[in-house]
Amino acid sequence: MLFPALENAVRMLSSLPGIGPRSALRIAFHLIRSDMEKSKDLAQAVERLKTEVRSCTRCGSLSDQDLCPICRDARRDPSVICVVEEPGDVYAIEKTGEHRGLYHVLMGAISPLDGIGPGDLRIDELLRRVRTEEPLRELLLATNPTLEGDATADYIASMVHKASI
Amino acid sequence: MLFPALENAVRMLSSLPGIGPRSALRIAFHLIRSDMEKSKDLAQAVERLKTEVRSCTRCGSLSDQDLCPICRDARRDPSVICVVEEPGDVYAIEKTGEHRGLYHVLMGAISPLDGIGPGDLRIDELLRRVRTEEPLRELLLATNPTLEGDATADYIASMVHKASI
Repeated sequence: MLFPALENAVRMLSSLPGIGPRSALRIAFHLIRSDMEKSKDLAQAVERLKTEVRSCTRCGSLSDQDLCPICRDARRDPSVICVVEEPGDVYAIEKTGEHRGLYHVLMGAISPLDGIGPGDLRIDELLRRVRTEEPLRELLLATNPTLEGDATADYIASMVHKASI
Repeated sequence: MLFPALENAVRMLSSLPGIGPRSALRIAFHLIRSDMEKSKDLAQAVERLKTEVRSCTRCGSLSDQDLCPICRDARRDPSVICVVEEPGDVYAIEKTGEHRGLYHVLMGAISPLDGIGPGDLRIDELLRRVRTEEPLRELLLATNPTLEGDATADYIASMVHKASI
């Protein structure tokens, strides 16, 4: 009953997180009714995400330049680094407005069952920052409250203590 | 804290029905992590919706050809027409699998307050179908259970009765 163009759009939209087939159909109808410009803008925004977004060379968060907006911001306190698992965590913490320091994104957590060891994460980069950047006053370990997140925090704590002795 | 490419994507995504700023950010992260192909496919699917989708010349539902898949389907009973307000209603009723006839999409309902009169809807097209298509056995008025939907159904019923006298 659906024809290829609509079926395809519904399939693609419902593969996105939090969008089921019903919402996908509703979004497709919305796009069909909206003006041509809006669909073009949406399509371009999606493509721009892939071509323009990269990782911040310092903290590993998302960025459109070498350094992300937070690492570029001179008003942030470089002596406090908050360690998180994913770029999404940075935005969640930023929303609280409570953290005025910088971040370090690990890109995951240690998970032996999934074959993810310390070497697969950005832990070496963190230890390098701890050693080479201006004097660090505080390292906030804000990994997720899961077995993997806790193990990762413990591992980092022990490595940092070793490195600073 | 967001940079232009990400901010733009979040704004575009959260303008879609049922997607708030939080879901938009989650979808953006998902797209950034997914492979290039997926984002391209999504962008193309959105653009195809606008270039390929048009209205069925007979029932007014969505189609990629002159006639929609339902009007093209020889197994459907052309002697029963179900009248609905929007293309989305067709899909909702199709999901029940209970209606084996055809459809007629009005593209709205009579709403004097919004300046929508019978002439703004596809009512003339419906009356023409009633007069010219093969003998109609049943006209199901499935407009929405709202003041506007009921008024539209009443109006159509009176017009059809007049036309068939």
